[in-house]
Amino acid sequence: MKHKSFSDMNCSLAQTLEVIGERWTLLIIRDAFLGLSRFEDFQNDLGVARNILTARLKRLVDQGILTRQPVTEKGRRYHYFLTQKGQDLLGIVLAYTHWGDKWLANKKGVRLVFTEKATGKAVEPMRVRSKAGTPLTIDQLDVKAGPGGSPHVKALFGIYGD
Amino acid sequence: MKHKSFSDMNCSLAQTLEVIGERWTLLIIRDAFLGLSRFEDFQNDLGVARNILTARLKRLVDQGILTRQPVTEKGRRYHYFLTQKGQDLLGIVLAYTHWGDKWLANKKGVRLVFTEKATGKAVEPMRVRSKAGTPLTIDQLDVKAGPGGSPHVKALFGIYGD
Repeated sequence: MKHKSFSDMNCSLAQTLEVIGERWTLLIIRDAFLGLSRFEDFQNDLGVARNILTARLKRLVDQGILTRQPVTEKGRRYHYFLTQKGQDLLGIVLAYTHWGDKWLANKKGVRLVFTEKATGKAVEPMRVRSKAGTPLTIDQLDVKAGPGGSPHVKALFGIYGD
Repeated sequence: MKHKSFSDMNCSLAQTLEVIGERWTLLIIRDAFLGLSRFEDFQNDLGVARNILTARLKRLVDQGILTRQPVTEKGRRYHYFLTQKGQDLLGIVLAYTHWGDKWLANKKGVRLVFTEKATGKAVEPMRVRSKAGTPLTIDQLDVKAGPGGSPHVKALFGIYGD
């Protein structure tokens, strides 16, 4: 199935979805964060079809989110690791996790607890925050087009009082 | 195309993906955050097929993320609004946006700037933070199974020193 591309949308959310928006991709990235690195490990954990996993891993490598390294010097098997660009997805992964913890909870309680190594304390819930660190809701926010914003966006959302 | 469901995975990320992981869904939610509410407005903005948009909106209403209200008292047209559960997706939407701003930037600069109304200052980038507010990277985090964590997860990630 050929999907319409989001890559022509001048929107950072759409651009990101174009790269990591396919089903399975965030689960592969989750597993990479949790220490899995080999094709077989991803496949066993996710139960995803091998051809789909192959395609998703290739796309993530092509996009610079994963890097692959041979397991042995002349091997054809690879480890997949998160690059800096990939590690920067941590906020997205945790934002999903925290929303699921809150709204789609397991009755027995939280599934995974993320803590700061140095203090042992749970991390803060992923929330939009002010410069001062206060959580903000949508009604406390303004949005305006930046230098890369398209005229389309400005018109659509009435930015600049159009 | 029938997808394998993620709903049997005991993982808050997978549970969330099951609800908002379809293509288009986060773009519909983005548009709702930016003030769009009518079917025609979503359709015009996104250029998505009408049958797909209908199915996505229905699923979001069924999941309690959007609520729909008739435009007029006896009309068959509806406005769609984010519920509290839907508004709580703001962190996910901004996490995508900030990642795209950083890694898939428009050459001319940032596309949209989100500011705190009260101060006019840009919001903080979405990052995983400690209780003290410090941004944390993956190597500064520990993870352990909570009361709702499955034995599978404990074994897979060697939690509890298994």
